[in-house]
Amino acid sequence: MKGEIIAIGDELVSGRELNTTSSFAAARLFDAGHEIRYMTVIGDEPSDIKGALHLALQRSSYIIVSGGLGPTSDDITNEAVAAALGLELQEDGQVADTIRRMEHEYNTSFSEEFTRKLTMLPAGAMVLNPHGTAAGYELVHDGVHLFFLPGVPEQLREHLVERVIPRLNQLDPMRKKIRQKIFKLFGLTETQVNERLQDLPDLDQGIRLGYYPVFPEVHLSITVKGEDSPHVNQVFDAAVDRVESEFHNEIIATDSGSLEATVGNLLRKRGVMLAVAESCTGGLVGKRLTDVPGSSSWFERGFITYSNSAKMELLGVSMDTLQQYGAVSSEAATEMVQGAAMRSRAQSAIAITGIAGPGGGSAEKPVGTVFIALLVGDDLMVHRFLFHGSRDEIRAITSETALDWLRRYLAYGSKLPGYRPES
Amino acid sequence: MKGEIIAIGDELVSGRELNTTSSFAAARLFDAGHEIRYMTVIGDEPSDIKGALHLALQRSSYIIVSGGLGPTSDDITNEAVAAALGLELQEDGQVADTIRRMEHEYNTSFSEEFTRKLTMLPAGAMVLNPHGTAAGYELVHDGVHLFFLPGVPEQLREHLVERVIPRLNQLDPMRKKIRQKIFKLFGLTETQVNERLQDLPDLDQGIRLGYYPVFPEVHLSITVKGEDSPHVNQVFDAAVDRVESEFHNEIIATDSGSLEATVGNLLRKRGVMLAVAESCTGGLVGKRLTDVPGSSSWFERGFITYSNSAKMELLGVSMDTLQQYGAVSSEAATEMVQGAAMRSRAQSAIAITGIAGPGGGSAEKPVGTVFIALLVGDDLMVHRFLFHGSRDEIRAITSETALDWLRRYLAYGSKLPGYRPES
Repeated sequence: MKGEIIAIGDELVSGRELNTTSSFAAARLFDAGHEIRYMTVIGDEPSDIKGALHLALQRSSYIIVSGGLGPTSDDITNEAVAAALGLELQEDGQVADTIRRMEHEYNTSFSEEFTRKLTMLPAGAMVLNPHGTAAGYELVHDGVHLFFLPGVPEQLREHLVERVIPRLNQLDPMRKKIRQKIFKLFGLTETQVNERLQDLPDLDQGIRLGYYPVFPEVHLSITVKGEDSPHVNQVFDAAVDRVESEFHNEIIATDSGSLEATVGNLLRKRGVMLAVAESCTGGLVGKRLTDVPGSSSWFERGFITYSNSAKMELLGVSMDTLQQYGAVSSEAATEMVQGAAMRSRAQSAIAITGIAGPGGGSAEKPVGTVFIALLVGDDLMVHRFLFHGSRDEIRAITSETALDWLRRYLAYGSKLPGYRPES
Repeated sequence: MKGEIIAIGDELVSGRELNTTSSFAAARLFDAGHEIRYMTVIGDEPSDIKGALHLALQRSSYIIVSGGLGPTSDDITNEAVAAALGLELQEDGQVADTIRRMEHEYNTSFSEEFTRKLTMLPAGAMVLNPHGTAAGYELVHDGVHLFFLPGVPEQLREHLVERVIPRLNQLDPMRKKIRQKIFKLFGLTETQVNERLQDLPDLDQGIRLGYYPVFPEVHLSITVKGEDSPHVNQVFDAAVDRVESEFHNEIIATDSGSLEATVGNLLRKRGVMLAVAESCTGGLVGKRLTDVPGSSSWFERGFITYSNSAKMELLGVSMDTLQQYGAVSSEAATEMVQGAAMRSRAQSAIAITGIAGPGGGSAEKPVGTVFIALLVGDDLMVHRFLFHGSRDEIRAITSETALDWLRRYLAYGSKLPGYRPES
């Protein structure tokens, strides 16, 4: 069964908002073995909604439509769908009950327009979650299953996972299994990754490789779709092994893992706590580390030393160093990382000082000049980098380079960062 | 002229990567007055590429296709386009020259496959940037202009802004003007915003309102497309004025602005420096503030006090307080914010302590319990919140609530946060 996703919204087709919900839906469907062939985005325009629905009815077995089901005046999906498919709008008793119950519970009274928008659904609509407030529904038309879901991300997620996927599993019990492994690499370009896999055997046996730059990482996917036979599984496992041995040092995470979670696991295994001292990244490294649940067992504290006085007072960087070499210098980074370790209860520390731009650069130290220092036990390392890009990009690649360096040191004792663009 | 965007890539249609490039392209085109009617995503499958091209040729005047132009084995756009449109693949002399020059410059030799992938383009292709390495090109077919662009975001951005938009401006000089204003609101739901604008006059005079939840904000757009007449402009300006006065207190930014930039401007105008002390947000507030270029003129330093010892040593929170009330308490937040102000050179401070989850909650202090304290000059405020959602969502709404509270205090002296979900 081939499926497609249609997202409705002026905010999407004008590029003002990212279409995160279609991607979420496609990913969950893919994992459950339901392949999506087309994703379409259109604006809040009845004629475009009609056109997209008619096209999808011709080429797909199931269609997921998101957006435009809410109570605000730009929510026009129900009217447009009824018109496009030649259906009446009828009051849905279950939704009307739910709204009356809510009015009672919150001791309020919704406007007539609000109630009408939510309760009048195209004839034949089967509400997916009779007790919820957002009325996602299923319609069967010309043998095609259409699922209309709210565009609000949390509501879409709930409808899709709890209602739509179980329903599709029921409709398509014989679907093919999909096996996929994602490798996240840092320090290599897409072309370098591809060239080192040119000789990967068995590529024609149903295995697909994908190369995706996800700044500043490159993600590599290995996918096999087909029978769950010993042969197919063997070919898949061999490809996974080959990638693991080829990129042993560059793999920062796999599947839904992240570099920061990998670093956290290494620290936990070693029983080492970490402190960070950040200037130009301004808290980004701390934010990334504490994105990881349970990070308090290996992340101890952070110093955001944006001003020179903060560097001196919080980390003990000397005024001499700042005057003689500047805040963006190997010497300052070294004193920052020593200060972070000494003025914390951590046995390891990262320090970052640099010029993220757009202002602040000079001929000697252009925008993108960054010093990263690493201290683990008695080992102190410092390196000068010259990164390129926007302020956001320089900050992102700086935090990535620092975390990856710590990963390499903890994993196999590397004293050099993996990515070293130098001035 | 109606346009559409086709993005090619298994990583997109399987939901593994967000389609950021189509959104970027649509936004830039929209701003230049070129409306996009359809955005389509398909996988690396020649038959789907063919189907999408033929459909687009029927319904659009220009088509932007991104992805699959690189040198790796999954890059199949050129072959698929040539087959779909019945064109030969021919070596492009300019691209071949560029590649030879690069080989000379870097003293390297690319593989035959690498060179072939990049130089063999469909007959009639006009390379957009003859001196770049990524060969985006234009093709005219059946009177429709097709632009093939690399999918790597930085390369797509450059091609689109430097080449495609100037070309479309030339092809469609009589396009209608678009005026749009975006208001970013925090502390209200989409429905609340909509209800307060029910009586907005002149909505039928070509003005469109859009409501978009962008967690944790609600964005409201006012769009008018049409002649640049005094009447249309007057209607637009009246709608903008109405929204500005209705949501005076809730508007955190407009257009491409952000809450953190608004806070920075208020601090700069007052000549007040800011320090932050973060526990559960772990650097996120510092990261957001330092996303703003020039933030060093109003952001002084940050303390990421993730452990109890960090709270005591860096901020002077007393052991008594931590033992009697706990690290997540009004008392701890108060001592944190006082410590941040006293141990910095800032005249204002934000302190945050809470339980972001998924672990660490209790009956008395469930996951989502957060205390935020604010200190500006002699005013000290502290408030207890109960936020809901995932770890990421709780951290995001915590940082938003804290920054919005500071904005409200600086802008009009509010001693209460705007958003107050309480336990």
